[in-house]
Amino acid sequence: MKETLMKMLENRKDEMINIRRYLHRNPELSFQEKKTSQYIVEFYKGKNVEIHTNVGGGYGVIVTIKGEKEGKKIGLRADFDALPIQEETDVPFKSNNPGVMHACAHDGHTAYLMILADCLIQLKDEIPGTIKIIHQPAEEVPPGGAIGMIESGLLDDLDHIFGVHLLPLGPVGIVGYNSGYVFPGRAYFKLKVQGIGGHGSSPHLANDAIVAGAHFVTAVQTVISRRLNPFDMGVVTIGSFDGKGTFNVIKDKVELEGDVRGMTEKTRELIEKEIRRIAKGIEEEFNVTCELTYTPDYPPLYNNPELTKMVEMALKNTNDRDIKEVKEFPKLSPSEDFAHYAKKFPACFFYICCTPKGVEKPYFNHHPKFDIDEEALLVAAKAVGTVICSYCKTNE
Amino acid sequence: MKETLMKMLENRKDEMINIRRYLHRNPELSFQEKKTSQYIVEFYKGKNVEIHTNVGGGYGVIVTIKGEKEGKKIGLRADFDALPIQEETDVPFKSNNPGVMHACAHDGHTAYLMILADCLIQLKDEIPGTIKIIHQPAEEVPPGGAIGMIESGLLDDLDHIFGVHLLPLGPVGIVGYNSGYVFPGRAYFKLKVQGIGGHGSSPHLANDAIVAGAHFVTAVQTVISRRLNPFDMGVVTIGSFDGKGTFNVIKDKVELEGDVRGMTEKTRELIEKEIRRIAKGIEEEFNVTCELTYTPDYPPLYNNPELTKMVEMALKNTNDRDIKEVKEFPKLSPSEDFAHYAKKFPACFFYICCTPKGVEKPYFNHHPKFDIDEEALLVAAKAVGTVICSYCKTNE
Amino acid sequence: MKETLMKMLENRKDEMINIRRYLHRNPELSFQEKKTSQYIVEFYKGKNVEIHTNVGGGYGVIVTIKGEKEGKKIGLRADFDALPIQEETDVPFKSNNPGVMHACAHDGHTAYLMILADCLIQLKDEIPGTIKIIHQPAEEVPPGGAIGMIESGLLDDLDHIFGVHLLPLGPVGIVGYNSGYVFPGRAYFKLKVQGIGGHGSSPHLANDAIVAGAHFVTAVQTVISRRLNPFDMGVVTIGSFDGKGTFNVIKDKVELEGDVRGMTEKTRELIEKEIRRIAKGIEEEFNVTCELTYTPDYPPLYNNPELTKMVEMALKNTNDRDIKEVKEFPKLSPSEDFAHYAKKFPACFFYICCTPKGVEKPYFNHHPKFDIDEEALLVAAKAVGTVICSYCKTNE
Amino acid sequence: MKETLMKMLENRKDEMINIRRYLHRNPELSFQEKKTSQYIVEFYKGKNVEIHTNVGGGYGVIVTIKGEKEGKKIGLRADFDALPIQEETDVPFKSNNPGVMHACAHDGHTAYLMILADCLIQLKDEIPGTIKIIHQPAEEVPPGGAIGMIESGLLDDLDHIFGVHLLPLGPVGIVGYNSGYVFPGRAYFKLKVQGIGGHGSSPHLANDAIVAGAHFVTAVQTVISRRLNPFDMGVVTIGSFDGKGTFNVIKDKVELEGDVRGMTEKTRELIEKEIRRIAKGIEEEFNVTCELTYTPDYPPLYNNPELTKMVEMALKNTNDRDIKEVKEFPKLSPSEDFAHYAKKFPACFFYICCTPKGVEKPYFNHHPKFDIDEEALLVAAKAVGTVICSYCKTNE
Repeated sequence: MKETLMKMLENRKDEMINIRRYLHRNPELSFQEKKTSQYIVEFYKGKNVEIHTNVGGGYGVIVTIKGEKEGKKIGLRADFDALPIQEETDVPFKSNNPGVMHACAHDGHTAYLMILADCLIQLKDEIPGTIKIIHQPAEEVPPGGAIGMIESGLLDDLDHIFGVHLLPLGPVGIVGYNSGYVFPGRAYFKLKVQGIGGHGSSPHLANDAIVAGAHFVTAVQTVISRRLNPFDMGVVTIGSFDGKGTFNVIKDKVELEGDVRGMTEKTRELIEKEIRRIAKGIEEEFNVTCELTYTPDYPPLYNNPELTKMVEMALKNTNDRDIKEVKEFPKLSPSEDFAHYAKKFPACFFYICCTPKGVEKPYFNHHPKFDIDEEALLVAAKAVGTVICSYCKTNE
Repeated sequence: MKETLMKMLENRKDEMINIRRYLHRNPELSFQEKKTSQYIVEFYKGKNVEIHTNVGGGYGVIVTIKGEKEGKKIGLRADFDALPIQEETDVPFKSNNPGVMHACAHDGHTAYLMILADCLIQLKDEIPGTIKIIHQPAEEVPPGGAIGMIESGLLDDLDHIFGVHLLPLGPVGIVGYNSGYVFPGRAYFKLKVQGIGGHGSSPHLANDAIVAGAHFVTAVQTVISRRLNPFDMGVVTIGSFDGKGTFNVIKDKVELEGDVRGMTEKTRELIEKEIRRIAKGIEEEFNVTCELTYTPDYPPLYNNPELTKMVEMALKNTNDRDIKEVKEFPKLSPSEDFAHYAKKFPACFFYICCTPKGVEKPYFNHHPKFDIDEEALLVAAKAVGTVICSYCKTNE
Repeated sequence: MKETLMKMLENRKDEMINIRRYLHRNPELSFQEKKTSQYIVEFYKGKNVEIHTNVGGGYGVIVTIKGEKEGKKIGLRADFDALPIQEETDVPFKSNNPGVMHACAHDGHTAYLMILADCLIQLKDEIPGTIKIIHQPAEEVPPGGAIGMIESGLLDDLDHIFGVHLLPLGPVGIVGYNSGYVFPGRAYFKLKVQGIGGHGSSPHLANDAIVAGAHFVTAVQTVISRRLNPFDMGVVTIGSFDGKGTFNVIKDKVELEGDVRGMTEKTRELIEKEIRRIAKGIEEEFNVTCELTYTPDYPPLYNNPELTKMVEMALKNTNDRDIKEVKEFPKLSPSEDFAHYAKKFPACFFYICCTPKGVEKPYFNHHPKFDIDEEALLVAAKAVGTVICSYCKTNE
Repeated sequence: MKETLMKMLENRKDEMINIRRYLHRNPELSFQEKKTSQYIVEFYKGKNVEIHTNVGGGYGVIVTIKGEKEGKKIGLRADFDALPIQEETDVPFKSNNPGVMHACAHDGHTAYLMILADCLIQLKDEIPGTIKIIHQPAEEVPPGGAIGMIESGLLDDLDHIFGVHLLPLGPVGIVGYNSGYVFPGRAYFKLKVQGIGGHGSSPHLANDAIVAGAHFVTAVQTVISRRLNPFDMGVVTIGSFDGKGTFNVIKDKVELEGDVRGMTEKTRELIEKEIRRIAKGIEEEFNVTCELTYTPDYPPLYNNPELTKMVEMALKNTNDRDIKEVKEFPKLSPSEDFAHYAKKFPACFFYICCTPKGVEKPYFNHHPKFDIDEEALLVAAKAVGTVICSYCKTNE
């Protein structure tokens, strides 16, 4: 089956690129991807598969390819939302939607998966088990679209799930993997420090919220420097200290917003506990009110080691001119809502290199000039296809 | 002369009140007091005095009352600008000018001085020396109107200067005084901390300006707690910490604005030196750029002790039914641009109580509901008149 | 009576000096002044007065001079303890007791008062009322000897109390006074911060007490900079941060000791409340145990304004060649356990200048080279004597 | 050769244990291991090898086993110093030297290596290349004995070097390895902050070194929290804050001592640069003098990945009843002066488990109750022997 599939994919490379360009031209923001969703559904119409639309109370699409033979059930996930960024590239298929751009390659993810899915539909008879194609909206904005897909119940019977991300970490042909925790989990917090306003010349009649807020900022540094295992990855960033006021009026309140990263659930929990403690301590110390909202969103993304080993070996052992190198990648610092699936099912999320040809320092994902080498779409399709074929064998 | 003057003032009490009400109804913001200035000039027209208008490149008015006899030259100063405050009182002569209000009693200062001046003009023959009536604009907004009045050169020959402030620190009839430094000087500073922005998950690739700014705030507390003589009055307030940003983006720059008070020039200088040092230290410590703008504005107001003693004794020894009590007041925490005159000439600035009848907790100056007992205008006129008469005696 | 008394004192100047030299040569530490106490008692033996020894469970001596006539009861207090300082002067009557020195002039206080008391005993018949001579031990070491003297009950019936301090703030002949709060009150605190020790490379397994202690130090600065009225005098000094350890071992505990000053009881209370709050906040913030011992010792010393006016006028109106100038002094920063008396009785504590002749920058009290011009003893005796005489007149 | 060697080692297990017990009973502190060195030299006397004694200006011993055949030159290193710890175990061969104890298993390292060396001497004819047995003193105390051994020049021609550490991380039979950086490097720093002393009530006349020191402590936290790549391991511990003083005297100076860890040279350099910057910043900020001594000592220990792979494979492929499991270990947090060799030669340092039988929570190295299962000595000898044999094969 693998040989057939690879050939089919090669033949449909241009189609992938066209789909990707269409999507690129018509990006939609997270949770608003109505037309993108319709476009995807349109693609599958008339094909011999079960289609679920508007999954998860939103624009999710799940296509179930039930193979002839019995076997395990696996999911393939691609996300399809765009970002609130004004595109600055010069590509001819530049975004038609001002201020919105496919700057994270979700257009590419969706394009390769649509064609791969279509090929798999055609090869249905040979597939042992079931493949669920998961077109997921809203990866970029917490709480993320993955939760809705999972809560729909349509994926409850999955045995494993796979996903890929296009990243400009090398030329087309390189596929990357890493085992265990690969992306950190994330949390968002907001701290409102309420003191008492007053005249700048009379601090004793007021209670300066800026001073209390500043002490929170300095104290919170110790969470990373003193509470975290130095071998663990964790970050606390206070990205916003909103204390704009009048120079000679003592500020009555400040609002801080922050971002937490942790490579394991344990780290995330530790950081949350410590931030809560510090907020309470500041409240006591400065006699202010500290209202802390703490929202863990994407969990750390855990690649099941055995499944990842399987992916690694399948890709290393394939003999394909387009998959030129398979190598271990470092842990990465952004967060990914694929992590929600990986918490529920043994999962593997891996990387498809897409640095544009001739570019030494490519713009990274989320940059207004982000661009990909479209040849990477075929690599993605082939890599995931290869993994499926290898998986199916063990499935037989 | 004193007896005559007191009588004249008593007879013109209603006129003072009417002028005050006219001004109250027609307040103008600092440096924009065109109509107020015209109104004052109109009042003096046709009177037998020298009038300078548009003094100090602005709306200042100086009326020179040259006595028949030789003698010292003294100034009497009243300010006439209003504040950017929406009046919330119920007085029938409420501000006609939305968002502008005479909430600091400058209407009263001007009213009593106009009538007092007119009386003095009538008594010119008996006055030894010269009295310069100084109607000053723009007391409320740094750098203040006093500088322009002084720089006009018209006051260069003054020997002494007096001024009063209406304050709701007690019922009508109480006159307050204090010697030496009585109001603190002030300075304004702005600190721009420039770091490097970046993604919340990668602090090492950025340089967090919020953290550097927070350390500035905590370090600056030591100026008051450790550098200042504990017996001296000084304040550093950071009233604005403008670091609003996005929770998961490391902030590239923050802007802090602050207010400094010091009861002596030495304290102001000490605080400035220390803040400059800390800003430089933070720059080094966090590898950020600290751009500090530091602007001393109103100096501390120094009441000449001998002159103040003279005022105290003149008022204590007067036997006037309207001046019921003369007492030492504490130092006060706001700043006053009369301090500029007091730096140049031996000066005395004292206080006329004006708490509205029956009110226990009056609204203080600058409050939208600030109000005065208008009987205080007569007290002001009599108190200053008494001081003049006493002064003239020594002048003979 | 005054004239007689002044003459008597003049005649006994050398005796005062001899007593002072004897005491200077034989200094004893606070609460250990056994021989000094015996020496004083010996002096009064056989005189026609009531003597109480070992007052207040210690070495206090109270000599009651009951005048013939009825009248008020006043106390005159002098302290007699020395300091744990190795004397570095070259006086011929240098301390015989290594490491102990009369470096705060208590030898002089005691000497002048013994002779003054003796003279008053001789003039007993002319005195209306009662004079209690209070020779007090242990002024230098909290809780101070004054408490014991008061708790003895022997002073319960006093109407007023007076005391003086020799200070090198000017040449002999100047007597200083100040009204209201004149010396700040004091408190001592000790903070034990208990964390968890550990290996320097594994902060997460320990809990760093040095970091928590450092945050206490930075937070406590805000008590003075933000909670105190800027017109009030207050100080918080952390004089000891005992965190000595091994560079690569995380410190399990640190011990901080601090000193608090406040010019009024209200300030002392405010600072105590805020320090307690911050200690609790740090406990929460860093999950350490903060054991705070807070001991207010000497209260602020309050000179009763009327009594001080009386002292001022008595001294200004005296016509004595030795009392050359009587002037208002600034508030002073040390603390004095005379404050305990002044809390109980209307009191006045004033200053006798004693700068050695020809010295421009004298060593201040508590310096190993501290020295006085012994002519000041006569001034002290005359000044207090004058006050007594003046007081007695009003007493009649 | 391997089979012969393994047998020989098995036969001499008791001898290893006896040597270890002798050393355990006679521990010597770092740089003072005179008798230990003599004992080792005695052992090799008369054997057919080249012996260098007193190597590196100290007590180092190098034994050169020159094989018959040509080949590469490898080093085997064991350390032999003890620690300043009072032993608290109950073993019959407890330390005879009060306050000194072999609490880091260097006795075991030396014992196994002496016997292994003796066996290799006997097998000399079969060995291709040269084996240098490196008995190194003073591993525990910076700058460490390794530097002297290297600077002797006697090791200049080594191709590779190996070493092991006994660790109670599992039962006897487990051998651990890890590739790349495995132990962090270390640095020591001392910061003297010099301010100006003074009376607790007059902060403005002094310059509080405790406050400046506390700000250093809080600022230094940001090195780890904001400057370090969150994926890198780094630690800054301030283990000593020596600011003991008197509660009411402003402290003139404090002395801080700290410990730095970094898993790579780059991290160590980054931390040094940042600490230097902060010290300079504090100097400016608080107008104190900051004298910083910064001494990098042990570098990060880098296990050459290819050599480590070779070790891993050799051990995994051996079929020996005593080497029961070979597994990857995590990075460890202490530092090791073997790192000096590993900077100069491709090296591999691995771990021999030695948890005493039946003990669930063993005391770790450096604990006064630290103990080992002596069966681990044979495992160490066999593991290193196996590696040598495998290496020799590639050497042929």
